Amino acid sequence: AIWDRISHLLAAGPAGTVTADPLSGQPDFDEGVQHRPLFGRHILVTAGPTHEPIDPVRYIANRSSGKQGFAIAEAAAAAGARVTLVAGPVTLATPPGVDRIDVESAREMADAVAAALPADAAVMVAAVADWRARDYAADKIKKDGGQLAPLPLAENPDILATLAARPDRPRLVVGFAAETSDVVAHAMAKRVRKGADWIVANDVSGDVMGGADNTVHLIRADGVENWPTLSKADVARRLIEHIGEELAND
Amino acid sequence: AIWDRISHLLAAGPAGTVTADPLSGQPDFDEGVQHRPLFGRHILVTAGPTHEPIDPVRYIANRSSGKQGFAIAEAAAAAGARVTLVAGPVTLATPPGVDRIDVESAREMADAVAAALPADAAVMVAAVADWRARDYAADKIKKDGGQLAPLPLAENPDILATLAARPDRPRLVVGFAAETSDVVAHAMAKRVRKGADWIVANDVSGDVMGGADNTVHLIRADGVENWPTLSKADVARRLIEHIGEELAND
Repeated sequence: AIWDRISHLLAAGPAGTVTADPLSGQPDFDEGVQHRPLFGRHILVTAGPTHEPIDPVRYIANRSSGKQGFAIAEAAAAAGARVTLVAGPVTLATPPGVDRIDVESAREMADAVAAALPADAAVMVAAVADWRARDYAADKIKKDGGQLAPLPLAENPDILATLAARPDRPRLVVGFAAETSDVVAHAMAKRVRKGADWIVANDVSGDVMGGADNTVHLIRADGVENWPTLSKADVARRLIEHIGEELAND
Repeated sequence: AIWDRISHLLAAGPAGTVTADPLSGQPDFDEGVQHRPLFGRHILVTAGPTHEPIDPVRYIANRSSGKQGFAIAEAAAAAGARVTLVAGPVTLATPPGVDRIDVESAREMADAVAAALPADAAVMVAAVADWRARDYAADKIKKDGGQLAPLPLAENPDILATLAARPDRPRLVVGFAAETSDVVAHAMAKRVRKGADWIVANDVSGDVMGGADNTVHLIRADGVENWPTLSKADVARRLIEHIGEELAND
């Protein structure tokens, strides 16, 4: 029903330069791209981990398969949006109709996000490393057989908070929160602290990473929706549905 | 010529319990498995990186695609050996005829290597992390907005040196050395320091990791062979040829 309403609202939306429909044949979206709920919108998605180099052979990484972010990019494209997917190092195939920009570190991801603006909505799914090795060693660090010095760290840019604070921020900024305890409470605090409009919170104390399913909570200013366990594709579709509804409230 | 000689030497070798040839149809090895140069041998191979967990979502990793180690396991199996492949986290398919044991950290890899003995030869290709985070945090470490403390590190077990020093060590222990400078000198020193019989040294200052080709030096007690740039499959075949020759000198 929401889909139908949105697609009618948007049917008279801005004319794009779409010359072919990369998503033709998808069962959920057999109508032309210009009739789809996110047609004319630009959705920015980040996905995957970041890798923070220590030296030429070592790095600090965050666990993230990238699957949830890629599923969201795919669902946004299927809903008719122009999609920019800024992806950390993962081995996933690019979904059809998605513009992919590959990055490695948090600083590269921050630059790619800024370069992708303007966007109508941003969904920041990437598991960005909070910190990196303070000093990059151009030569491989050798075991010296002596004491092992602690590794000095430096804080990475906060991509979500930085984006949410920009004057040209997307109208809707959605963050993700992977939590191992007090999932909803941590995520509600994160929403406020980061200046995000919504936070999708999930409990990663189990083995959700790399798996096909996800159990999430959608946290907005006016409350929390607890979603049932869904496939990552269904989490993506439901989130994109909500985003389409929100953007239609112009 | 070497292959021919070895296969004749080994044709009368120990009878195995091979009931099927998983490698049938491979063009280079159209003779029965019992006539192959490494038939009756057990070859242990390690491959890939290790991941050293910092907390549930972060880890320290070494760059390694695992391709060279997997190619060596595949070549050893094609040469008729029973092959145990201890693999760090990679997304590669298991070569035909290879017993694969998946591990994540250096300590897990060390345990899997010890459990796989006895072996006739060990080829330690994995890029094992020299160190890990000293303390594992069961809960995700939070940004606290204050000072970022350096990360305390602890030394990992030295899998190659430990294996080479065991009384039940494989007759031939081959290590790999990824170097960014003074490749041969560093690798020659590593051969002696680790107690390895051979070291395969490669220069990783370029972009060899993840690529299809490799330029290596084979370092033995009696000298250094500089190999031309070869595909990783050809490096593997040539190394297995040398190993077959060495093991045939009983």
